[in-house]
Amino acid sequence: MKEERRRIVIVGGVAAGMKTASRLRRLDPKALITVLDRGRQVSYGACALPYYVEGLFTDLQEVRKTPAGVVRDEGFFRKVKGFEVRSRTEALSLDRRRQTVRIRDLDAGAEEELPYDALVLATGSQPIMPPLPGIDLDGVLALKSVEDAGRIDALAGTARQAVIVGGGLIGLEMAVALRRRGLGVTLLEAREQVLPAVLDFGMAALVHRELRRAGVDLRLNEPLRRLEGEGGRVCRAETATGSYDADLVLIAIGVRPEVGLAIEAGLEIGPTGAIAVDSSMRTDDPAIFAAGDCAEATDLVSGRKVYVPLGSTANKQGRVAANTIAGRKEDFPGILGSLIVRVFDLNVGRTGLSEAEARLAGFEPVTMLAPSPDRAHLYPGARPIVVRLVADRRSRRLLGAQIVGPGEVAKRVDVVATALSFGATVDRLAQLDLVYAPPFSAAMDSLHQAANALRNKLDGIGESLDPEAVREMRREEGEFLLLDVRSPREHAQVRIPGATLLPLGVLRERLGELPRDLPIVPFCKLSLRGYEARQILQAAGFKDVRYLEGGILGWPFELETGPL
Amino acid sequence: MKEERRRIVIVGGVAAGMKTASRLRRLDPKALITVLDRGRQVSYGACALPYYVEGLFTDLQEVRKTPAGVVRDEGFFRKVKGFEVRSRTEALSLDRRRQTVRIRDLDAGAEEELPYDALVLATGSQPIMPPLPGIDLDGVLALKSVEDAGRIDALAGTARQAVIVGGGLIGLEMAVALRRRGLGVTLLEAREQVLPAVLDFGMAALVHRELRRAGVDLRLNEPLRRLEGEGGRVCRAETATGSYDADLVLIAIGVRPEVGLAIEAGLEIGPTGAIAVDSSMRTDDPAIFAAGDCAEATDLVSGRKVYVPLGSTANKQGRVAANTIAGRKEDFPGILGSLIVRVFDLNVGRTGLSEAEARLAGFEPVTMLAPSPDRAHLYPGARPIVVRLVADRRSRRLLGAQIVGPGEVAKRVDVVATALSFGATVDRLAQLDLVYAPPFSAAMDSLHQAANALRNKLDGIGESLDPEAVREMRREEGEFLLLDVRSPREHAQVRIPGATLLPLGVLRERLGELPRDLPIVPFCKLSLRGYEARQILQAAGFKDVRYLEGGILGWPFELETGPL
Repeated sequence: MKEERRRIVIVGGVAAGMKTASRLRRLDPKALITVLDRGRQVSYGACALPYYVEGLFTDLQEVRKTPAGVVRDEGFFRKVKGFEVRSRTEALSLDRRRQTVRIRDLDAGAEEELPYDALVLATGSQPIMPPLPGIDLDGVLALKSVEDAGRIDALAGTARQAVIVGGGLIGLEMAVALRRRGLGVTLLEAREQVLPAVLDFGMAALVHRELRRAGVDLRLNEPLRRLEGEGGRVCRAETATGSYDADLVLIAIGVRPEVGLAIEAGLEIGPTGAIAVDSSMRTDDPAIFAAGDCAEATDLVSGRKVYVPLGSTANKQGRVAANTIAGRKEDFPGILGSLIVRVFDLNVGRTGLSEAEARLAGFEPVTMLAPSPDRAHLYPGARPIVVRLVADRRSRRLLGAQIVGPGEVAKRVDVVATALSFGATVDRLAQLDLVYAPPFSAAMDSLHQAANALRNKLDGIGESLDPEAVREMRREEGEFLLLDVRSPREHAQVRIPGATLLPLGVLRERLGELPRDLPIVPFCKLSLRGYEARQILQAAGFKDVRYLEGGILGWPFELETGPL
Repeated sequence: MKEERRRIVIVGGVAAGMKTASRLRRLDPKALITVLDRGRQVSYGACALPYYVEGLFTDLQEVRKTPAGVVRDEGFFRKVKGFEVRSRTEALSLDRRRQTVRIRDLDAGAEEELPYDALVLATGSQPIMPPLPGIDLDGVLALKSVEDAGRIDALAGTARQAVIVGGGLIGLEMAVALRRRGLGVTLLEAREQVLPAVLDFGMAALVHRELRRAGVDLRLNEPLRRLEGEGGRVCRAETATGSYDADLVLIAIGVRPEVGLAIEAGLEIGPTGAIAVDSSMRTDDPAIFAAGDCAEATDLVSGRKVYVPLGSTANKQGRVAANTIAGRKEDFPGILGSLIVRVFDLNVGRTGLSEAEARLAGFEPVTMLAPSPDRAHLYPGARPIVVRLVADRRSRRLLGAQIVGPGEVAKRVDVVATALSFGATVDRLAQLDLVYAPPFSAAMDSLHQAANALRNKLDGIGESLDPEAVREMRREEGEFLLLDVRSPREHAQVRIPGATLLPLGVLRERLGELPRDLPIVPFCKLSLRGYEARQILQAAGFKDVRYLEGGILGWPFELETGPL
């Protein structure tokens, strides 16, 4: 604007910053683009770090390489991308009136001022370190940088007992990584479930089961109180109720946006604590942009401002920031909180709103829990997934999905995310023309089955209860019949305690054996026979029949196994 | 309507018919529901039959079992589902005025008339058998029924050479099945490519390469002329240019809808040759419905009537027919021609319109070919996929996608199918909040990368050529420089014949070596470095620079391998 060669300064050289710079260079070959970063290593794929610790690749520099195997260092960016990267360089303060940024070379100590025509804050986030006794002991770490991963990897080579604090994405990924490295792992979660902001309780409970199956000592409702050390090294983690040996403690209770520079410069901070931006990624200063983990986003379903720092969002936002600076209109509409994590043999994904979030956002959520095989059940390797859909009762609008299971989860979450982006109803979800062949799905895909079950519920055709409601009924000791309509063989293998067996195949003949004065809750392995049984009983005049959503596969509570 | 217990007759007991009957029973416990089927075995999963021949499961009755392992025979439907199935029973004719159907018991020969309040035609489709010499020889088969699969399986145990006629879905699945059973397989396709109505040529060419890699003798542009026999058994297949030994010939040139009963009854047949229906699956007789392989559908992108018989569509249509008969409003909006097939180690999927179809439908298609790894490139097991997107130039509306590769294809096709259902632009596709974690995708998913590349093309930022255009330029012997910007190591492994090497890392320094008077076509392994090189050359004043879309991975034509 001011002159032909515009000066663009980008603060932060990981995901959003590098995307902004690269895109800008391609759009504006003349601009003077400078990327500053405090760290020594820039442009790394932070999301890959847990897999390095797990041992899935052995050269830590891989996280800095292009798909073609070239390390993205300062030389790469200068020679290939054509812009300057200054590592170990801190942005100290902004002078917004003069449009300059004061910077310091962290090695040489020298300070200087850089003028800018546009400035991009891509300062990222920092792990939250709770101010607890012992937090500064050796062996207490967070996972954020390449260097962190190197330190944890080295420690994991000698450590025997790890305590992970926090059951979020990184806590879960690191529980897998360290367990597979052979360490004993205790996972402390302050709330009653892992992924508390992300999954409804019943779905999280399926993850709890998997963590325990894999040998993780999962401690729910146990916030960390203090860390004990010996000779300056951590040796124990303590909660209100427990004490856990630890020679490695990973703090993973979340991250906070790095907004110091923005606050100091008087830029608007949003309700989430991250930098407020418009859909062009512009802050309230028209010459200053923010993108990536330091910026907030809009939730596409609730319309609210949210803070969900992810590398995928950082890349999209960086592109929009670059386009805007280059004078090309592009809006970043928002996000859905879509995410996925592999927890041992379980894939755990979600998008949109959970039931709790939907209620908070003013919807009237109706949910459906529906397990099914991830492909034709006779195709080798078919594995179950459990789908939980959330929709709004009145508008029938789909609000979100949570999907958990050893089978193919990512595809279904992405389909729901796409449908949510366009305000789809659950009816439209049921009618999507998804690909079908036995190696990939059943003729009715898992999502179609779940959507149809939810439509039936919304239409009052197939009344049902989810596992938590049934557990509540049992707690209240109200009398009702939990009716297992599977085969005797299936019943002998695994069953819900207290259930009565009456296989679907003989149900129509033996209706006389069932009580007419009690509520009946039929169930099966998935939900199909349970639903069928419910329709048969309803048609036969039984008054209060609701099938158990999710069947055995979706039941996250106690199960009995083996011969009766 | 006429009386309390409505009489519903359903003609055809495989996918659509059984779905209609089952759903109707649950909605209307009192209705008298009768399903007629000519065959002895009803309610089977026809799509699974090739995998039986391949040997992926050993009990053919599996295709008739529920996920819980119960065979869906007449007894199952009576006892569990609560309706009557009459196998080996043919519907001979309809009396629409009196609302009766004349039927014959194919074993006993007895005829009778059944009255109906609503009739559902779910008569399916039949393989097309071309009237060629030798078509009736023993050993010449089609794959449609459970019995067909049993016969082919038995023959495959002794046969040595199979000829498959037709490179559609079944032809390809059976090529895999028979090859893996150890047979020599010749695949005759009358047109210049497999999946001719489904894939654009360049994408099909990737499938051709895989078929040949797996040892299939693929013969394009070779329609079958005649079959020769010895002692009544087929021994050879002949085309205009070749003669192929064969002790098993599979005819797989397509299916036609089974519409004899509908035509005889004077019901409207649509332009595709299938039964015309409205969005409630009602024919032009308000008491008669059609669903599944005998009915036509509307293409959601072009708005045209199409005939794409698939089990997934049959199930959805059956549900809509049942709902309509039960007085519950539901519309079946249409289909996208979404499909997927595994061809040896390649997954091949598509949805929406191909470039050719888009042009026929009146759009101005712009395409993009973009390969990428299916997950973070450093995550173990990452494999490439090649995405081809089709969009409309003016509206930027996404029209379709074809995706081929050893990596994860189904997820991306389903995301595009979902986006197409809502009329998404390519811009919206690029911004979808899809799940991201290194085991599942890159931070920019393959679809995001492809969509962004297409946006650049639409915006005139990144001009490019697809492989067919480059091949055309080579054929015309116009002078241009095909510039390989990969590393010398990559170039030595595999390369496009005639390309000049100049790695991206030294391109900015060595611009002086490049001709200023020739068009330049840079390329790399994927497309990213090729695009980057194009931007560098463009910025340096080179006038005619267009990168090769798809790079080496998307190049379906000749490649040189090994040391130079």
